[in-house]
Amino acid sequence: MNGPVKSLVAAACAWLPIGLLAAEPIERVRDAAMASDYAYEQTAWLSDRVGPRLSGSRGHAAAIEYVAAEMRRLGLKVSLQAVKVPHWVRGEERGAIVEYPGRPEGIEQKLVLTALGGSSATPPEGLTREVVIVHSFDELQALGEKGVAGKFVLLYSRFDGFMADNGRAGNAYGVAGQFRFNGPNAVSTLGGAAALVRSVGGAEYRVPHTGATTFKPGVAPIPSAALSAEDADLILRLAEDGAVKLHLVLTPQTLPDADSFNVIGDLVGSDKPDEIVVVSGHLDSWDLGTGAHDDAAGVATAMASAAVMRQLKLTPRRTLRVIAWANEENGTRGAKAYFEAQQAALEQHVAAVESDMGGGRPIGVYANVDTATLPLLKPLNEALLPIGAPIAEWRATPTGADIGPLGLAGVPNFAPLVDGQTYFDYHHTPADTFDKIDREQLRYQSAVMATLSWWLANREEPLPRMTPKPQGEGH
Amino acid sequence: MNGPVKSLVAAACAWLPIGLLAAEPIERVRDAAMASDYAYEQTAWLSDRVGPRLSGSRGHAAAIEYVAAEMRRLGLKVSLQAVKVPHWVRGEERGAIVEYPGRPEGIEQKLVLTALGGSSATPPEGLTREVVIVHSFDELQALGEKGVAGKFVLLYSRFDGFMADNGRAGNAYGVAGQFRFNGPNAVSTLGGAAALVRSVGGAEYRVPHTGATTFKPGVAPIPSAALSAEDADLILRLAEDGAVKLHLVLTPQTLPDADSFNVIGDLVGSDKPDEIVVVSGHLDSWDLGTGAHDDAAGVATAMASAAVMRQLKLTPRRTLRVIAWANEENGTRGAKAYFEAQQAALEQHVAAVESDMGGGRPIGVYANVDTATLPLLKPLNEALLPIGAPIAEWRATPTGADIGPLGLAGVPNFAPLVDGQTYFDYHHTPADTFDKIDREQLRYQSAVMATLSWWLANREEPLPRMTPKPQGEGH
Repeated sequence: MNGPVKSLVAAACAWLPIGLLAAEPIERVRDAAMASDYAYEQTAWLSDRVGPRLSGSRGHAAAIEYVAAEMRRLGLKVSLQAVKVPHWVRGEERGAIVEYPGRPEGIEQKLVLTALGGSSATPPEGLTREVVIVHSFDELQALGEKGVAGKFVLLYSRFDGFMADNGRAGNAYGVAGQFRFNGPNAVSTLGGAAALVRSVGGAEYRVPHTGATTFKPGVAPIPSAALSAEDADLILRLAEDGAVKLHLVLTPQTLPDADSFNVIGDLVGSDKPDEIVVVSGHLDSWDLGTGAHDDAAGVATAMASAAVMRQLKLTPRRTLRVIAWANEENGTRGAKAYFEAQQAALEQHVAAVESDMGGGRPIGVYANVDTATLPLLKPLNEALLPIGAPIAEWRATPTGADIGPLGLAGVPNFAPLVDGQTYFDYHHTPADTFDKIDREQLRYQSAVMATLSWWLANREEPLPRMTPKPQGEGH
Repeated sequence: MNGPVKSLVAAACAWLPIGLLAAEPIERVRDAAMASDYAYEQTAWLSDRVGPRLSGSRGHAAAIEYVAAEMRRLGLKVSLQAVKVPHWVRGEERGAIVEYPGRPEGIEQKLVLTALGGSSATPPEGLTREVVIVHSFDELQALGEKGVAGKFVLLYSRFDGFMADNGRAGNAYGVAGQFRFNGPNAVSTLGGAAALVRSVGGAEYRVPHTGATTFKPGVAPIPSAALSAEDADLILRLAEDGAVKLHLVLTPQTLPDADSFNVIGDLVGSDKPDEIVVVSGHLDSWDLGTGAHDDAAGVATAMASAAVMRQLKLTPRRTLRVIAWANEENGTRGAKAYFEAQQAALEQHVAAVESDMGGGRPIGVYANVDTATLPLLKPLNEALLPIGAPIAEWRATPTGADIGPLGLAGVPNFAPLVDGQTYFDYHHTPADTFDKIDREQLRYQSAVMATLSWWLANREEPLPRMTPKPQGEGH
C-alpha cells in the first residue's frame, strides 16, 4: 500500500503556503499533520480491510500484524509485547416480550438486543421471566433478593444527549454507563436471572450498544444484554399497565485467555533516547462494528504523529513511543502488562497521550497534570490556537484507560478534547464504521496529536510529575 | 381501554379558549382535533401492543380485530371487506464480504442486510458469488447477460437527504427507490444470481430498509436484499481496488395468499348518506419495525377525523368512510378489491384522502384535482391557515397508493403534506417505532385530516371530478 506515501506528498504540497511561513519545528509538525491524510488512510485500512478487532479474534491478530508492519515501514523501532487477553465470543442473541397487558393472542414483540462483553449464557433454549425495572442502584437494593431473585432486571437509564451536545459526552457516558459497568454484578448478587440495560448512547435507530460489564471476584456472571433504546422504552411503557415477561436467548462463550500483543514503535530521541513520551490508541474494538471511531482513529492519529516527524525528517529530543494497545475494551490487559513491565522505567516516562474519543475534531487537550503545571502549557496552547484547539482542560484523573496506570503513577497525561456530539451515537454499535470518519476533522485531530507529541517530546525539561495515587482509581 | 375517552375530555377542556371562539363546525372540528390525543393513543396501541403487521401475519389479523372494535366503539357502521393478500414470510438473512483486495487471511466482513418483500430464497447454505456494481439501469443493460449471469448485482443509488430536507422526501424516495422497486426484476432477466440495493432512506446507523420489490409476470423472482448504506458503501470502496465476492443467505418463503380484510367504518351522512368521502390509512406494515409512522399514524388520524365529529356530535352531509386498508406495502390488494367492489358506486365517491407519509406535522395538503378546481379549495386553506397548514399543492397523480384507483377513476383526492425530513430515515426499518411519534405533530396531522374530511364531506356541492385515466398509472 503506497497510498499513504502518495497522500503525504500531495498533502505537503497543498499546505505549502502555511508550511513556508512556519519556521519552528512544532509549527511544521502541526501543519504537516493538518495537510496529511495518513491517519485517514490508516483508519480506512483498519476499519474496511481488517474490520472488527475484539481481543482474541482473528481480526485483532490481523490488525496487530498490519500495524507492526506499518510502523516498521515508517522507520520506527518496533517491538511486540506479549499480553494474555480475555477471549469472549458473541453467540446467538435474541429476545421477545412474550407477555404484557393488552397483548393480542399469539403476539410477541421482538427485542433488538446485544450481549454485553462478559455476559454468561442462558440455556440454549433461553429463559422466560418477569422483568422488574429499576432506575437506580438504591431502588435495586430496596427490592432486595425477594424482589429480584429469579427475575430479569432492566436497569433503566437514559443517555443525556443534551450533556453530550454541550461538550460533556464523556460525562454523559459515565453517568448512563454505570448500569452497564456495574449493574449486572449487582443483579447477580441479588440472585437475578439476567440483567438488561438501556443502550448507553444517543442513537435512535434501534441499534443496541455493546460494551464490557464486570463481575467482581466471587460474583457469578449472569446473562447480560443491552436493549436498543426503543425496546427498553417499550418495556417501560408496557410495564406501566402491568406485568411484563421476556424471553431471552444469549449464548456467548468465555474461552481461555488468548495470546495477543501491544504493538510498540519507537521514534528514538536524538538527545534523551531513554526518556519516553507515549502517544497511543487502542487496537482492539468491539465486534459489532468495525471500530472506526473506537479506536482505529486513535491508533491512526498516534501513528500519524510519528509519520509526520519522519516525513519532515525531524527527530524530537526524547523518544516518541507509539503504542497500539491490545485490550482497552474488556480488561485493559495491554495497559496493565505494559505498566508491570515498565516498573523499573517509570521515571523515564515523562508524558503519555491517548486518543480514545473517536476521530472528531478536538478543540484542545485534556490535561491530567498538577494544577501548578497548567501555566507551563501556554506555549502548547499557542501552537494549537491556529488550528482552533487552544483549550487546556484540567482533569483530576487520567485522560485515557490505557495510560491510566502511568497517570496514577504520576506521569503527566493528555488526550485530545474531541467534539463528542455524535461519538456515543455510534460507539460500540454496528454503525461504528469508516463512513462516519470525516477526513477534515481527522486532519485536525492528527495535528493536535502530533503537536502535543512534539511539544512533550522535545521541550527542554520534562513537565513536573504528579504525586502518585493508588492504582485502580479508574479514569 | 378508556384512555382515549379520558384524553378527549381532557384535551377538549385544554383547548376551550379557542373552542369558544370557533363558531363554524369546520373550526370546531379542527380545534377539537388539535386538542385531542386520540390519534396518539391509537398509534400507540397499534405500534406497542399489536406491533408489526405484515399482510397475512398474526399481527395484521390482530390489528384488524382491534380497529374494527374501536370503530364500533366510536359508533361507526363497520364492515369487513374480505381480501386475499400476499403472504410473504421473512427467513434467515445474513451475508459477508468473503473476498476483497487486501483481505487479511481468515477475515470476512459481516454484512447487515434484509430481504426485500417478494425476494426468493437462496439455497439454505447460501450462495457465494462475485458482485458487480451498477449505478443505472443503462449500465446494467450495457453489462448484458455476459456481465451479469450468475453474479450478484449491487444496484447502487444514494438517497438524496438534501431533497428530503427541502420538502421533497417523496421525490427522493421515488428516485432512490427505482432500484428497489424494479432492479431485481431487471437483474433476473439478465440471469443474475441475486440483486442487492443500497437501503432506500437517509439513516446512517447501519439499519437496513426493507420494502417490496416486483417481478413481472414470467420473470423468476431471485434473492433480493437491501444492504445497510454502510455496507453498500464498503463494497463500493473495496471494489475500487479489485474483485469482491459475497456470501449471501436468504430464506424467505412465499406462502399461499392469506385471508384478510379492509376495515371500513361509516359515519353515515345526514343529508346525502349515499355520497362518500373516504378518509384512510393502511393497516399493514413491514415486519422489521412496528409500523408506527408507516402507517399506524395514518390509520389513527383517519379514525380521529371521525372520532372528533362523534365527540362534537357533528354529522357531515355526506358519509365519511374511514378505511384501514389491508395491503398497501406489498400488493395494494385491499385497494384493488375495494375498487372492484365499488364499480357500481364510483360516482358516489366524491373525494378520497389517505395519510401515508408518517405522523409528522403537515404544512397543508396535496391535491390531485383538476387545476380549475384549485380556486375552490380557498375556504379549506383558510380553515387550515390557523394551524399553519395552508398550502394546497397540486399533484398530477393520485396522492396515495390505496386511493390511487379511485383517483385515476376521477375522484378528487388528497393527502396531508407532511414534513418528511426524517420519515425515510425510519420508514421500513426496525426503527419505525412508537417513540418516533411526536404527540404535538400528530395533533396537527389529526387536525388537518379532520378539517379536510369535514370540508369535503359537508360542502354543498361535490368538487368537480377529473377525467378518468387508465388504471395502473401508479401514484
